Amino acid sequence: MANSLGKLFKLTTFGESHGPAIGGIIDGCPAGVELDFDAIQNELNRRKPGQSKITTQRKEPDSVEFLSGIFEGKTTGTSIGFQIRNTNQRSKDYSHNTDVYRPSHADYTYDKKYGFRDHKGGGRSSARETANWIVGGAIAKQVLKNIKINAFTSSVGEIDLNKPFQEIDLTKTESNMVRCPDEKIANQMIQKIESIKKEGDTIGGTITCLLQNVPVGLGEPIFDKLHANLGKAMLSINAVKGFEYGSGFNGSKMKGSEHNDLFNKDGSTVTNHSGGIQGGISNGMDIYFKVAFKPVATIMQKQQTINSKDEIVEMQGKGRHDPCVVPRAVPIVEALSAMVLVDFFLLDKARS
Amino acid sequence: MANSLGKLFKLTTFGESHGPAIGGIIDGCPAGVELDFDAIQNELNRRKPGQSKITTQRKEPDSVEFLSGIFEGKTTGTSIGFQIRNTNQRSKDYSHNTDVYRPSHADYTYDKKYGFRDHKGGGRSSARETANWIVGGAIAKQVLKNIKINAFTSSVGEIDLNKPFQEIDLTKTESNMVRCPDEKIANQMIQKIESIKKEGDTIGGTITCLLQNVPVGLGEPIFDKLHANLGKAMLSINAVKGFEYGSGFNGSKMKGSEHNDLFNKDGSTVTNHSGGIQGGISNGMDIYFKVAFKPVATIMQKQQTINSKDEIVEMQGKGRHDPCVVPRAVPIVEALSAMVLVDFFLLDKARS
Amino acid sequence: MANSLGKLFKLTTFGESHGPAIGGIIDGCPAGVELDFDAIQNELNRRKPGQSKITTQRKEPDSVEFLSGIFEGKTTGTSIGFQIRNTNQRSKDYSHNTDVYRPSHADYTYDKKYGFRDHKGGGRSSARETANWIVGGAIAKQVLKNIKINAFTSSVGEIDLNKPFQEIDLTKTESNMVRCPDEKIANQMIQKIESIKKEGDTIGGTITCLLQNVPVGLGEPIFDKLHANLGKAMLSINAVKGFEYGSGFNGSKMKGSEHNDLFNKDGSTVTNHSGGIQGGISNGMDIYFKVAFKPVATIMQKQQTINSKDEIVEMQGKGRHDPCVVPRAVPIVEALSAMVLVDFFLLDKARS
Amino acid sequence: MANSLGKLFKLTTFGESHGPAIGGIIDGCPAGVELDFDAIQNELNRRKPGQSKITTQRKEPDSVEFLSGIFEGKTTGTSIGFQIRNTNQRSKDYSHNTDVYRPSHADYTYDKKYGFRDHKGGGRSSARETANWIVGGAIAKQVLKNIKINAFTSSVGEIDLNKPFQEIDLTKTESNMVRCPDEKIANQMIQKIESIKKEGDTIGGTITCLLQNVPVGLGEPIFDKLHANLGKAMLSINAVKGFEYGSGFNGSKMKGSEHNDLFNKDGSTVTNHSGGIQGGISNGMDIYFKVAFKPVATIMQKQQTINSKDEIVEMQGKGRHDPCVVPRAVPIVEALSAMVLVDFFLLDKARS
Repeated sequence: MANSLGKLFKLTTFGESHGPAIGGIIDGCPAGVELDFDAIQNELNRRKPGQSKITTQRKEPDSVEFLSGIFEGKTTGTSIGFQIRNTNQRSKDYSHNTDVYRPSHADYTYDKKYGFRDHKGGGRSSARETANWIVGGAIAKQVLKNIKINAFTSSVGEIDLNKPFQEIDLTKTESNMVRCPDEKIANQMIQKIESIKKEGDTIGGTITCLLQNVPVGLGEPIFDKLHANLGKAMLSINAVKGFEYGSGFNGSKMKGSEHNDLFNKDGSTVTNHSGGIQGGISNGMDIYFKVAFKPVATIMQKQQTINSKDEIVEMQGKGRHDPCVVPRAVPIVEALSAMVLVDFFLLDKARS
Repeated sequence: MANSLGKLFKLTTFGESHGPAIGGIIDGCPAGVELDFDAIQNELNRRKPGQSKITTQRKEPDSVEFLSGIFEGKTTGTSIGFQIRNTNQRSKDYSHNTDVYRPSHADYTYDKKYGFRDHKGGGRSSARETANWIVGGAIAKQVLKNIKINAFTSSVGEIDLNKPFQEIDLTKTESNMVRCPDEKIANQMIQKIESIKKEGDTIGGTITCLLQNVPVGLGEPIFDKLHANLGKAMLSINAVKGFEYGSGFNGSKMKGSEHNDLFNKDGSTVTNHSGGIQGGISNGMDIYFKVAFKPVATIMQKQQTINSKDEIVEMQGKGRHDPCVVPRAVPIVEALSAMVLVDFFLLDKARS
Repeated sequence: MANSLGKLFKLTTFGESHGPAIGGIIDGCPAGVELDFDAIQNELNRRKPGQSKITTQRKEPDSVEFLSGIFEGKTTGTSIGFQIRNTNQRSKDYSHNTDVYRPSHADYTYDKKYGFRDHKGGGRSSARETANWIVGGAIAKQVLKNIKINAFTSSVGEIDLNKPFQEIDLTKTESNMVRCPDEKIANQMIQKIESIKKEGDTIGGTITCLLQNVPVGLGEPIFDKLHANLGKAMLSINAVKGFEYGSGFNGSKMKGSEHNDLFNKDGSTVTNHSGGIQGGISNGMDIYFKVAFKPVATIMQKQQTINSKDEIVEMQGKGRHDPCVVPRAVPIVEALSAMVLVDFFLLDKARS
Repeated sequence: MANSLGKLFKLTTFGESHGPAIGGIIDGCPAGVELDFDAIQNELNRRKPGQSKITTQRKEPDSVEFLSGIFEGKTTGTSIGFQIRNTNQRSKDYSHNTDVYRPSHADYTYDKKYGFRDHKGGGRSSARETANWIVGGAIAKQVLKNIKINAFTSSVGEIDLNKPFQEIDLTKTESNMVRCPDEKIANQMIQKIESIKKEGDTIGGTITCLLQNVPVGLGEPIFDKLHANLGKAMLSINAVKGFEYGSGFNGSKMKGSEHNDLFNKDGSTVTNHSGGIQGGISNGMDIYFKVAFKPVATIMQKQQTINSKDEIVEMQGKGRHDPCVVPRAVPIVEALSAMVLVDFFLLDKARS
């Protein structure tokens, strides 16, 4: 098990979806940061279940209790312990799963790796864990201050917000429940998710994230390149199947003469196929990347599967699940981005 | 700087493209592994420059000298030091670059981060470093023994080997210089690269990698998921812009009812959209992923750029560079895969 | 800040003495360990304040709540979160210290390093933190099973249990409140502590620890030698000023011909000046080491000191403090030993 | 195996005493440090064998070749690779040891842990490794600049330089071959070592080290306290059996009213029993500590021992060994101190 993220700003987490609490410890947060607790709760609210008709209807207050590392509202430089109590576990929803391996879930692999598992609600493999990341990321954002981090839903199934980020008004992301900053496309996405939900099915999608005002020089080659750590963090999110930054997969079809970003006199570049990173180090241009999410595995349709005795059995999802994970994953992508950036920010200070 | 890869099987490297040598230290290789030195050199030969008409014509023998950790042909469990002497540096090729920031290179970011840089041949940011990874990977492969690791060129520019890996004969990868296992597509790719080379231009491409016979249970959630560490390793390779595994970006367009991999009675799955990994842990099915490479930044055409005094200058590549990096990157993708797998293999032993 | 101990079995902690709770996360505990919760609480009771007339009279129940990583009484292989609520903080005892740097405390250094500090009861620098270590160590002991870990008070001030460990009956350690296994010496120590307490003063002492049944082969040279990690762990305990193992400082006065441990035919040794470790690796013989504790800095006498405005002020300890820290530190030494050993135990499994 | 020291300034090493070379990689050295190569070689000369009549007569030039990370005399911020070729291996001195476990050596434990070993000259367990540390330490000293690091021989056997460090003229340490700054005591020590050598025996001793001008605030509690990392580094040196700092073991006999260091108005302290560190963080006072070395295990007398077949055999040291390791260990203690300090120096910059 590896439950820590980061080197100098390090989040270590614990918690199962149906245990008494989840939580974590942030080690290495600089001292003297005056925390805005409302901002932290606001980020938790953006992720929390039951926030709209297109998310799971499960209700959890997701309020965080800080246990250490903060004195008179400011970080002290010591480790910050926190917990989020689990309040709305309907474990009976999972009693039928005790022994069944749900298709495309982690049930089978956890059982084989550890010999047995906490089967309630996915245990440690549940996306409930990501609430911990929100807390870490919300604090990281407050350390970074001037850096702007904005993720948004760029596609749901085949419905794609097919525009360069420069043409998107990011202030509109939160104006609709699917978190797509283009109102028209957002409505199509919402309709798609509602129709998928009616079928008892689920659908995938992508999130694009934009990091602005990142200072030149963040990233630690050879093996902690800025984009490599962003990619690893995104690939840690449940259901993520791919990551690309800058020109991404499309860049593999281009010629060097097209792809090269020529310099302006001030060190900025005319184009930005590089995605704000060269040689693993930020170059001061906008950083952008895209993350692909598969459809949620728990569907409300009957599926054939096996149990731990290798018997074929039939099952049907009964918990309260998201028809599309993407809207609630937007703040998660931002939180992880913030933690990756703050770690490099501190590392860069050490070396200079 | 972060020059180490891995936790228990850890490669730490050094070296600039035009310094006296590159090399590394492998820490944590189990004791008693009887090394096949020819196999190691063979991997280096697959990566080395000058191997065919579609790669750079620079010649380097790339022979590795082991300095420790091996006694009478077997690993001793102590750290394995090695070096590869640089023999064919034509530094004068780079004398004109002393002060110039090449577009889409790391010149600018290294200068800004570290205050100055070794400008000869890209210094530490050169892909020459990847020869060190080949050595680490070749030894990792020998520890893993039964695991099969096969990467191949799946696209060059728009030319795409558009087949599921199950329909590909991987024994043919090494039969042509572009390392595409389909002879017909391979020839198209070679022609494309030759024509791009004549233009003094470069072209991107993708590599697909298949990992077979991986035991169930490798991977350490939450923050060292198997695919996350594979992704991070791949994103560490020069010129890589994207990583996807299993259904990848295409999976974001699918419905849960299509995407879910139903179980067979023996725990294998009917389909494999998951790409052999569930919840960050290998499930015993084939693992596959794809890596996107942008076109090489150094082109043999005139480009306008700036120097360190923020003056606009004109430059043209003069070194010996690859028109397409993908064929030589195939063994690099395999080497990194091997190192990621062996690290998880050792971690899994510790926990069980 | 660095709040983690261990590499594969890793304890990360948080908590100030006067915050709402202290606690931690154990990452890397093997799955399937059936936990004896009474044994864990018993270890906490051995450390807890108010247990006898020679310790601080502060009362804290020190009961631990586990929040994750355990299912139906067994570890699941996921991270184990736990907390111990602080119930008996008399912060007003510390209100007079807001601005005063107590002599030989960490007040001054925390203030200078972090810019300000949580002044109540020493905040993060309080030995209250060691309750977290007890939890980690109690679980580590249950993973190790066959290894015997026994620490005891070997001196208080000048009163020294001057016997080789082979002549000591370790079953008697818990039979008296000072935790010295020799009843006669124990009584002298208790009298000494009582008389020191009456003076409002404090006194130092030493603890000796014996590790038995440790398998041959634990320890990871060059930079994680078994005794080096034991030493580092012991030096992390509040008030520790020295560590020696085997012949220790006395060994520096000996000749090689006296000091060398000759082998018996079975690989055991006739003498054991090496202290059970050679080249940083356990050799199967008994491991023993000694730890020196300075007297507690908080005394009930008037002392002159300074405040944060560099003014000379007078102060007198008012909290409830131990006249001698050694009796309550005995289980702490054992807990840290257990965590160091279990980490090497898991590392050794990975390599072999 | 764990062959790395440090977190941000990290030295990773390799090499057996009788292999082709030893060497290492320094990762995380700040960019732009103008290196004084003579100073580095001078430190190597202080450690090298054959330097006087009281050390081993083995001759090795111990010249270091830097392979990367330095450009035009300055560090570039990339990893610094270096090697020291082994030139004077008389492996035949060890041919008789192939199968024999030398008493109080690491032969037995390496064989049991790794299954076999490089038996020539102790292989990886040889103190030849410490030459690598000298290189790392010499560069660390150049990063630290204003910090003064001075170790000296404080005892050989029973001959003890029994003075507080404040009364010692540290400029005289290098004026005699035993590196004791008191000429009279130094002569006694030299005579003692010469007489021990004649007997074919060896003798232990202690080294005291003084760190001055260390800024307030270095050290990372809870688990990377300044003295804990110094202690761990010292315990990594071959033959070390104990470490104490400040009042050390003697402090365990004192009362709090005697031991407490009262403050002067400027934050300095009247006494310095704390040894310059409080709560694991430097307080700006002089840091001092003492390290105990056992006598070298290889003696020129006949000893009975066993071989790998568990047969009793007789052996006698034939290599060229030191009768007392302490004089040559003085620069090693300094080198490790410098590496520990520079790591904390960089960590502290990151957090502030």
